[in-house]
Parts: sequence; C-alpha cells; structure tokens
Amino acid sequence: MALSDDLLHQFNLKLSAVSEASRVLSTSHTLIKNAALESIARLLEQRADEVVAANAEDLARGRANGMTDGLIDRLTLTAERIAALAAAVREIIGLADPVGVVSRGSMLPNGVAIAQLRVPFGVVGAIYEARPNVTIDIAALAIKSGNCVVLRGGSAAESSNRVLVAIIQAALVEAGLPADAVHTIDEFGRDGAAQLMRSRGLVDVLVPRGSAELIQTVVNESTVPVLETGAGIVHVFLDESADLDMAVNIVLNAKVQRPSVCNAVETVLIHRDAAARILPVLAGALEQQNVELRGCPRSQSLVPGMIGATEDDWATEYMDLILSVRIVDSLDEAIDHIRTYSTKHTESIITERVSQAERFLAEVDSAVVMVNASTRFTDGGEFGFGAEVGISTQKLHARGPMGLPELTTTKWQVRGNGQTRS
Amino acid sequence: MALSDDLLHQFNLKLSAVSEASRVLSTSHTLIKNAALESIARLLEQRADEVVAANAEDLARGRANGMTDGLIDRLTLTAERIAALAAAVREIIGLADPVGVVSRGSMLPNGVAIAQLRVPFGVVGAIYEARPNVTIDIAALAIKSGNCVVLRGGSAAESSNRVLVAIIQAALVEAGLPADAVHTIDEFGRDGAAQLMRSRGLVDVLVPRGSAELIQTVVNESTVPVLETGAGIVHVFLDESADLDMAVNIVLNAKVQRPSVCNAVETVLIHRDAAARILPVLAGALEQQNVELRGCPRSQSLVPGMIGATEDDWATEYMDLILSVRIVDSLDEAIDHIRTYSTKHTESIITERVSQAERFLAEVDSAVVMVNASTRFTDGGEFGFGAEVGISTQKLHARGPMGLPELTTTKWQVRGNGQTRS
Repeated sequence: MALSDDLLHQFNLKLSAVSEASRVLSTSHTLIKNAALESIARLLEQRADEVVAANAEDLARGRANGMTDGLIDRLTLTAERIAALAAAVREIIGLADPVGVVSRGSMLPNGVAIAQLRVPFGVVGAIYEARPNVTIDIAALAIKSGNCVVLRGGSAAESSNRVLVAIIQAALVEAGLPADAVHTIDEFGRDGAAQLMRSRGLVDVLVPRGSAELIQTVVNESTVPVLETGAGIVHVFLDESADLDMAVNIVLNAKVQRPSVCNAVETVLIHRDAAARILPVLAGALEQQNVELRGCPRSQSLVPGMIGATEDDWATEYMDLILSVRIVDSLDEAIDHIRTYSTKHTESIITERVSQAERFLAEVDSAVVMVNASTRFTDGGEFGFGAEVGISTQKLHARGPMGLPELTTTKWQVRGNGQTRS
Repeated sequence: MALSDDLLHQFNLKLSAVSEASRVLSTSHTLIKNAALESIARLLEQRADEVVAANAEDLARGRANGMTDGLIDRLTLTAERIAALAAAVREIIGLADPVGVVSRGSMLPNGVAIAQLRVPFGVVGAIYEARPNVTIDIAALAIKSGNCVVLRGGSAAESSNRVLVAIIQAALVEAGLPADAVHTIDEFGRDGAAQLMRSRGLVDVLVPRGSAELIQTVVNESTVPVLETGAGIVHVFLDESADLDMAVNIVLNAKVQRPSVCNAVETVLIHRDAAARILPVLAGALEQQNVELRGCPRSQSLVPGMIGATEDDWATEYMDLILSVRIVDSLDEAIDHIRTYSTKHTESIITERVSQAERFLAEVDSAVVMVNASTRFTDGGEFGFGAEVGISTQKLHARGPMGLPELTTTKWQVRGNGQTRS
C-alpha cells in the first residue's frame, strides 16, 4: 500500500523539515549537543509520570490485542526503566564526539592540502518494533553524532513514542537546536514505514533494529542505504588440542550467560579426536544449566539420550537454552560447516595449536573471529566503544560492533591557493 | 524477465564457483597476486592480435546495429590501447596491498587482545556497458585487493570480454590461483544482470560503472549492497572577494580541460558584488574556448548575447563545453542553490576571506569541498591513491575518490586465553 497523495505530501513535508534541521545539527558544537542530551535526561526524570501514563495506554492496547508476555515486557516503561534510560543518555554525553576527527590527509606535490574528516550522515532513519527505549537510545546516539533522525517505532508503542519524542524536541529547543531534528512517523502507519524506505535523498541511511524478519524486509525493500545489524548463528569449534576446562567454561559462558542475544553460541563443533575427551563432560555441565542438546549421530553415541539434530538445527538461531552439537573430522570440515550455516557474526576456536588458530582467524569469513575467548565478547561495550549502535553483519561501511563513529561518514576538504590541473 | 530454471541453475553454479575461489584468493599473499597481474599484462601483449580480432566482431555488430561514434570509440581496442591496459595493470602491481593492514586494536582490561584488519570483500560484482577496458581494470583491482569478481560487461562487448576473461583466467592459473576467481556472465544477457543484482549471499558488493541511468537502475533494483559512483553536477562559487585571475583560471580549468568527466564544473555561481568585475572577463575567456554560457537574467544583462538558463540547466550534468551561470546575493544563497541542485560530488569556493571559506567547507554537504582549487582535483590519481575504483557520491562505506582500500572490508580478530564474560 502507498500513502494517499495528501498523506504523502504531509510525510514529505515532515522529512524535509528534518533535512533542513540537519543543516544546523550537523555543524553544531559538541557542548551544544551535550546540553541537549543533558536536557533529555533531566526531562525524562521530570516527566516520568507522563511517560508511564502514555505507556499504560500502549500496554492496555497490547494486552487487548493479545500481545505475548515477552513483547509486553519489551514494551513496558517503568519509573525505574526511565531512570536507566536517563542514565544511558548521560553516558553518551561522556563519549568522544566523532565529528571533525581527521582520518587522513596529505599535501599534494603542487601544494594543495587534502584532509578527510568525519561528518554526520545528515538524516538517519530508524525502523524498530514496539520498544520505546530504542526511541531514546537511537535519538541520543544520533544527536551526539550530529545526525537528525526520523523514527518509526511501531504503532504498538505509538503513545509512548509520542511523549518521548515531545521530550526530545523540548530538550533540543532548550539547547537552542531545532525541534525538527527528531521526528516520529508512527502516525503514518505501515505505509509510512514503506515510504521511509523509498525516501532516498531525504534520508541518508536506514538503521533497522529488531527481528531478522524486520531487518530482511528493510534490506530487500529499501532504496535508502541500510546499516544492517544481523542475526547471529554463532559457532564455537573445539579443536583436537582444546583444553578441557577452557572449552567447557567458554561454551557454558557463550550459551548460558545470556542465551537470547545475537552473540550467544548456537552450534558447537568438536574435532573427532577431542570428542570422547570433551563432549561427555561438556554435555554434563550444559545439562546442569538446563541446556537442551541436539546432536549429530556421532555426538548422540557419546551422550546417551541426546536428541538428534536435523538440518534445520544447523541453520537456527535458537536465542534459547538449546545448543546443537556436531563432531567433525578436521578443521577444514569445521570451516566448511561454518561457511554453510554461519550468519558471519562471530565464531571462536578453542585450541592450543597456533597453526590451527591462525588458519581459523584467516579463513573464517565473519565480522569477529576469536581464539580461546567467549563469543559473548562481540559487543560495543566490551570492545570499549562506550555505546553500541548495533552489530553489523554486512561488509559495507561497518562490520562487527558499531559505535558512534559508525554513525558518521567522511568528507574531503581541499585547500589550495589557485591550483589548476595540468 | 527472469532466467529459466535451467539457466538460473547454470548461473548459480558459476557464482558458487567464484565464491569457492574466493576462499583461496582472499588469503593469497601479495607476491602471488602480483604474479597473476604480471601474467595478465604479459598475456595481453602476447595475445593482442586475438583481442583485436574478437573486438572487431563486436565493432562490426555495433556498426550494424547503428551504434554512435562515441560508443564505437569506447568499444574499440587497438594494439596501442591494449599496451596501455597492460601498463595500467603493471602500475597496480606497484600499489600497496590493502589486505592485512591493521586499522585499530587494543588490549581489553581482561587481557583479551582485539585487532581490526582489512580483508577482501570476497566476491565483487561489476556491471558496466560496452567498455572492454573496464574488464581488465576492474579485474586487476579486484585481484590485487584479494577479491574475486563476476563481470557483466554488456552484450555489445561480449566477444572482446570473452577473450579478455580467458586471458585473465590463464594468468591466474599461471600464478597458481583458481581460474574461477574471475568470470563473465555476459552469456546470460540482461536477465543475468538482473539476477546478479539479486544474488545477495553469493556476491558481497556490486560496483556499477557507467551512465547515471545504469547506476540508478542498479541502486534501485539491487539487494546486494552497492558501491555507488555517481554523476557530478559540480559547482564553483566565486565569492565577492575572489581574485579575478584565480577565478578565471580555475573555472577555465574546471570546465575546459576535460569537459566529459564527472569532476568538470557545470554551474558557476557568482556573488552579486563580484559579478560586474569578474563575469565579463570570465565570459570572454570561456567564449575563446568555445564554451557556451547559459545564464540567469542578471548574468545575461552583464554579458550581451548570453543564452538564458532554464530550470533544467541547473539540474543538468552537461559533460560538454556548456556552462550555466547564476548571480547570487550571498554565500547563503549559493549554498542553498548547491543544496538544491548538487549531486554532492565536488564544490569549490574561490574567495580571499577565511570566514567565507570555512563556512563553505563546513556547510556544503559534498564528498569533496574545496577552497581556491580546481574541481578537477577530485580524482584518485591526484589524491595519491595510484588507481581509482571510482568516485563515490554515497555516504556509506566510502565517499569521494576510492582506491584499493575501499575494495576491502574489515574483520575483528580476538585473541584470548580462556576469558569468559562476567
């Protein structure tokens, strides 16, 4: 479905206003952007009751529509969660401003000076699903990096998002910045989201956040360039020489510490010559943590009662206390398996042999490849970025955890004194 | 139109073979890749007659189909042009290999070492039009950067491209690399090009080279990420304080030196308080070089006989000895005009005032912004990159002239000794 002519006109007016505001925001000083962020944090605290009341409307509608408990939980804003959001905004104040950083430069032989520096994208579009905390999160990251933002947060969170955007706009005005720098297009519904994906020229980059399905839709339908954050079918390979304790600790950590996230492991591959030594111990430890194992026939023969894995299991991101297990004959077979089923997010090898470690690091084509470390380390916070925009599984622009610099592009500045090309 | 099931199967077999070859090429040493490039150069020289003969078939077909002289010229390969292609390949041998360069890294507090290094994309798809020299150019850049490549060079150059790809494959085999690293899909026709744009997962990035129309089609239809190289509606703004000689020299150079390229100027904006001083002299100099001027009413009143510019003129990339001229009241009006009509490629201000120069550099949102320099400097060779993949007008991944590093992505390598996340 497309927007009616009248709605399309309103939609484009709104996006043009955001685009116009980006002329101001993109050249605003760090101190002014930080002042806006501080105002957002303060207004979130001051107007928490108003946010909770608006959120109650969304929750009532969600329950009436039969929303699952998990989705209701993600939709819920409490005073405590709002305070946490305000704290997260204040953390972004403390991060370095990526804008203006010179990445390279030189003096050409004819005396022309060239320098490449980081500048904001301009207008970022965000598409996500019924998680009002993302509204604050994305807006704060965008403002800090000098970007304006058009938010499509889903009609299920429309009331919450309306109040949150009003708070953000009030904060922008307090800091002397244009209110138009942040807008929601929730009122245009699904057709508005579709139009946003076709708004090349008005929006510089789209950031989808949410399910694999949502991201796939945006990637397929958008003519606006997409910063893709992807699902993780993450592998750990236990090589022949893997240390038993290290293997068990890392797999446990990678599976159990937080099973619902993209950097949790979904499949463990084990070298056949390590299987008898490691798998029974590993299976026992995982079962103690209520992890369901699904294995290949050889794995099943080593662990009595293990469920058989199907072809689907190798291609599934469980995001749950389920782990698939496969015994392989060699590092090559492990790499082949990863090549077939991985989403190119994160893979780790546990080994004591340098040659195997280096081959794994070189040959596995994933955003993050590891030796003897938990896959849970693939994270902007862990990598020291301070805030995370998401984890990119695409190869263009950014790969792996994305911080504030990944919300910027570059511009070449060229300074001459009359030079012409001969 | 889609490929038939049978052709689609053949198409996918070919792309899978390229993808498989990328496992070898992506981890091959620089010396081996350079050996393949040297073989390409030598075989081009040795088999030049064969190339010219195949090219003659394409030319005969082109003439029979009424191809224009300009297109025939671009399609033509002579012994001299083949020698120049071989020389260009040897220049790429001399460039630094971007693969393996560490861009950042640190030791996390828990002793885990992280490093981000440049790695090849994997498989690059190239879509271009009846220019067989691009076949060699793109393949050589891809091989040097460790990428395999799928070429769609247009059916008008099919015979030439078939021989050129055979030469490249022979050279790869001489160097011990897989012949499958470079393939053409010309035999699948237009439907093959359409299928290439839908081959997400088999192709990592698409590089369209050619007309604005071709690039627009690829951007709109491709689900594979695109490295967009765009058209240039390039502006020079002559500020109130512009030096007369500098203004005339730079505009002449930017327009006349090579009018058919994307970094040539298309519109000159002149501050109203400089117009009477500069425009008549500038117009005289341009007319001596047979440049047709199309101006706003105020420009026309200063230059007798000047043709009037229409709205279309401001939005046209002439690529010819035509220049549009507009007098503006202020720097703000110049920036507004650029904001409306620029393709965000390159803009230059000619001024003696620092405040105006700095505002222009900060506020104009283009890949390259200049002060007192010819727009013709926006070029990989001029910037010292040695070879140019194209000039990106998009904001994702690369902006401005692209060299070999822009044909790579990055990968994080993480080395621990058993660390888990707490």
